[in-house]
Amino acid sequence: MRISKLVGERFKDLPAGVTSKSHILLLKAGYIKQVANGIYSLMPMAQRVSLKIQNIIREEMNKIDGQEVLMPVVMPKELWEKSGRYYSIGQEMVRFKDRNEHDMLLGMTHEEASVHLCQNNIKSYDQLPFMIYQIQTKFRDEARPRAGLLRVKEFTMKDAYSFHTSKEDLDEYYNRVYDAYNRIYQRIGMKNFVAISSDNGVMGGEGAHEFQLLIDAGEDSIVLCDHCGYKANMEIATSNYSMPKFEDEKLKEIDTGDAKTIDELSALLKKDQSQFVKAVCYAIAGEKDKIVVAFVRGDKEVNDAKLRNYLNVSDIAVTDISESGLIKGNIGCVDLENENVIKVFDKSLEGLCGLVTGANKENKHLSGVNMERDVKVSEYVDIVKVNDDELCPECNHALKIKKGIEVGNIFKLGTKYTKSMGMTISMSDGSQMNPIMGCYGIGVGRCLAGIVEESSDEKGIIWPMAIAPYHIYLCPLRNDDEVVNKTAEELYSKLSEKFEVIYDDRNVSAGTKFTDSELMGIPVRVVVSPRSLQTEEAEVTMRASGEKTMVKLVELEKYLENIIKF
Amino acid sequence: MRISKLVGERFKDLPAGVTSKSHILLLKAGYIKQVANGIYSLMPMAQRVSLKIQNIIREEMNKIDGQEVLMPVVMPKELWEKSGRYYSIGQEMVRFKDRNEHDMLLGMTHEEASVHLCQNNIKSYDQLPFMIYQIQTKFRDEARPRAGLLRVKEFTMKDAYSFHTSKEDLDEYYNRVYDAYNRIYQRIGMKNFVAISSDNGVMGGEGAHEFQLLIDAGEDSIVLCDHCGYKANMEIATSNYSMPKFEDEKLKEIDTGDAKTIDELSALLKKDQSQFVKAVCYAIAGEKDKIVVAFVRGDKEVNDAKLRNYLNVSDIAVTDISESGLIKGNIGCVDLENENVIKVFDKSLEGLCGLVTGANKENKHLSGVNMERDVKVSEYVDIVKVNDDELCPECNHALKIKKGIEVGNIFKLGTKYTKSMGMTISMSDGSQMNPIMGCYGIGVGRCLAGIVEESSDEKGIIWPMAIAPYHIYLCPLRNDDEVVNKTAEELYSKLSEKFEVIYDDRNVSAGTKFTDSELMGIPVRVVVSPRSLQTEEAEVTMRASGEKTMVKLVELEKYLENIIKF
Repeated sequence: MRISKLVGERFKDLPAGVTSKSHILLLKAGYIKQVANGIYSLMPMAQRVSLKIQNIIREEMNKIDGQEVLMPVVMPKELWEKSGRYYSIGQEMVRFKDRNEHDMLLGMTHEEASVHLCQNNIKSYDQLPFMIYQIQTKFRDEARPRAGLLRVKEFTMKDAYSFHTSKEDLDEYYNRVYDAYNRIYQRIGMKNFVAISSDNGVMGGEGAHEFQLLIDAGEDSIVLCDHCGYKANMEIATSNYSMPKFEDEKLKEIDTGDAKTIDELSALLKKDQSQFVKAVCYAIAGEKDKIVVAFVRGDKEVNDAKLRNYLNVSDIAVTDISESGLIKGNIGCVDLENENVIKVFDKSLEGLCGLVTGANKENKHLSGVNMERDVKVSEYVDIVKVNDDELCPECNHALKIKKGIEVGNIFKLGTKYTKSMGMTISMSDGSQMNPIMGCYGIGVGRCLAGIVEESSDEKGIIWPMAIAPYHIYLCPLRNDDEVVNKTAEELYSKLSEKFEVIYDDRNVSAGTKFTDSELMGIPVRVVVSPRSLQTEEAEVTMRASGEKTMVKLVELEKYLENIIKF
Repeated sequence: MRISKLVGERFKDLPAGVTSKSHILLLKAGYIKQVANGIYSLMPMAQRVSLKIQNIIREEMNKIDGQEVLMPVVMPKELWEKSGRYYSIGQEMVRFKDRNEHDMLLGMTHEEASVHLCQNNIKSYDQLPFMIYQIQTKFRDEARPRAGLLRVKEFTMKDAYSFHTSKEDLDEYYNRVYDAYNRIYQRIGMKNFVAISSDNGVMGGEGAHEFQLLIDAGEDSIVLCDHCGYKANMEIATSNYSMPKFEDEKLKEIDTGDAKTIDELSALLKKDQSQFVKAVCYAIAGEKDKIVVAFVRGDKEVNDAKLRNYLNVSDIAVTDISESGLIKGNIGCVDLENENVIKVFDKSLEGLCGLVTGANKENKHLSGVNMERDVKVSEYVDIVKVNDDELCPECNHALKIKKGIEVGNIFKLGTKYTKSMGMTISMSDGSQMNPIMGCYGIGVGRCLAGIVEESSDEKGIIWPMAIAPYHIYLCPLRNDDEVVNKTAEELYSKLSEKFEVIYDDRNVSAGTKFTDSELMGIPVRVVVSPRSLQTEEAEVTMRASGEKTMVKLVELEKYLENIIKF
């Protein structure tokens, strides 16, 4: 490719609000262009990277006997009614009416479509297990797209669906996919990725892992133990933490005035935050009249995902309580009787005494709360986030919390979809069963952007060789010099037979060329100049290490063969 | 691939209404599954064919310096408002509101998006010409999807856009694309395709070709001259035809009672159909009050495309005239005065006399119409379809009309999109210009189905080698026989290193295996059986010719290498 014809200009100025590293670099280096909020065009260099990632994914999926298919982007409502997801999924799913007023939707994932595809095609137990996959465009109407390709509305995704006759068979295949995923991330050049147990979210099912790339721009919190290898998404992570012991006192109503938050109360009463009972109110999606009050210890934060899972509902959100009869800032766990309120108590409160809670009256709190004596708690559950200073639930060593971005996930789905859609197969004894499913996703664009996040420096992107848009940046200096120009043209034609070469044929300064090659992130730069040609050499620079080597032109091809491997 | 695990059962029974050959065979052989009207899932074998077609297209696009990109499926209204197409395109375009009530649409083509992608990236004349292309999902809400993959709502399309500084440069590049298209169709194994001049339709611009595959299931009519090579879509085809000569008479009102159609009038008055003036009424999309009355000779049919082009409107449709004051079946061209009527006269009427036309009164017609004397026609235009018995407009030899399906098209777009979207580049003299565009499409699924239409027989599909889902159908007979089974397993593993092999590992009859291999259309069948192994041979059968050869097992690989070429 001659850079003079490349569609993808380098830019110095960026639009406002662009802050993540990958977003900045992909814009500056001419890889992407925004079309709308969360919707991008991939320019030629990005599409080259994307296709290479896709091909590696395809190879690994084929290795584990995956059969590639293509399911539709646009699907009819009927398909999603059977599974119930037409109603349970919110605004992220685009719904529209076709020209005949028929309800249609844009597929977010393809569990329903994959069951539909296999139904009537697979009838007998001996056809299982099998896996189908596709690499396809998905659209999710994200509320908050951000950070360039890291969180978008439209994206290319590999999604796979496996079908099994037993849990054991699913478990075995699940492990093969787990290994294939590890190979994929390694092969595309990702470094800091971890597989962690995860919350199943809207997918339903039993058992799941997500693959998290640990980068500062990540939006998930990952809890890690370096000692025993424990790792979990904050959404389901647990920890060991100490239980404070306060003096047991009589229950007493105290005046707390304007003090409402734990910070304010702690300052006013000169007590540690752990001595308070914090109340957080939530609304449940689709249930207008109910309010959930989550009680946790004052030094802890509610973990929405844990609370949602405990309540077994699809969505909850912190809510305004103005019309509920509850008194903001003074909600307490003693004698709170309200038929619309669902009370949930965190384990961090279990067995404590001497606590302070709201008095359910304006400007009043109760001190000396003894949980056992004063509050009727039928069940304490874990609904809090892990804190940075807590200990590993498995080995009691110190935990770390890191930021991660989910680059893939695998789920044991169970029979949710085959059951609801009525897909059955005949077993050897003549009985019928609903196949047990697994499903497996990887976001291609997010992998691309994630690698830019972790593999880049102040000069630009540093592509791993296996997915670099080009292997070699061929860079003549002074290409107004006839000998330089002739040599470069010859090299371009010769090297292109073996490698992917981008050829800087522009008549611009060495500085501009070097800056562009570094910004674009091409792994190997080959420079020929009047000076290098005096000794019949080219200067070879590695983008990652900066290492420079003078190589004789006659040995150049062999030299490059040795370094361009993946 | 072991057929026992293949997702894609063979079927005997078909749903009602499936009539086209490719639709029948793709369903029966387990290649596709319908998800909704005009929306299909591609099963593993179809996706293999599709990917092979895509890769051949990609190679040919890269050869003519195409740069692959990926533009979004979902786009904001704003992009399509600039070009005006947000309003000019009808119900085929899906429009919806996103979660923030923003108007969005599903891309039918990507002229707007391609200009948006290049804008600000390409600034100077010396960066041109260039071409970007993508292979991507499109959705068009077709009113009448039909014939399986031949006319669908959702499909995979390669669309390409080139940018130029002069018409000459576009012409030159257009010819390169024209040649690349011919290579693509040849390489994927299409036989009966022709490139013809075409109507530009909604794309605007100047000069276009469509590539038509001539098959009976086609829905376009193609006019061809075997003698000089003239070929054109019926939409713009012209012909030479004789002008009848009738006796000049006085204008006379005659009673025609219930006779309304040309057939009825011709029978009643015992005159040839060519002696009548036929009136056909059309509504113009978006112009409620106007009615177009097209007058053509009684033996001719109005060509909607020609009429639409002449009127320079985006859409017309035959209309009901009940509220217009016109009298159905008695509309005539003499003294028809109605301010809402636009009259258009076809050339087939020019200079004729002795004609019969409606009298614009119930049950009455006028005979003896002399066009020159009785009708004030300012302009005769060509708005009729070519008939089968007419002569080539270029060499006067007999024309043929064949059915065709459009498998690709190329357009000289001009500056419609760069102008309306304000994309400019600097010329060498400092002036600014709007680049001149070309655009080029190929429907992948339609190519696939088209090839099935032309390359199949009563037994099933006959895939061309280059796009066959597998090259070899490995078919052991009596695989309960230990020797057969061992040999087959060894062959499967060995042949899979060089070829794509589908292995019929099922314990079913020879008849079932042969029927399936023929239905699925795999080019080469390799049979090993107890009998063939007695002489250490395999039987190799070519799907296309039915030719059978006994080949020694030790020579099999070499033999297959010689026949599996593309």
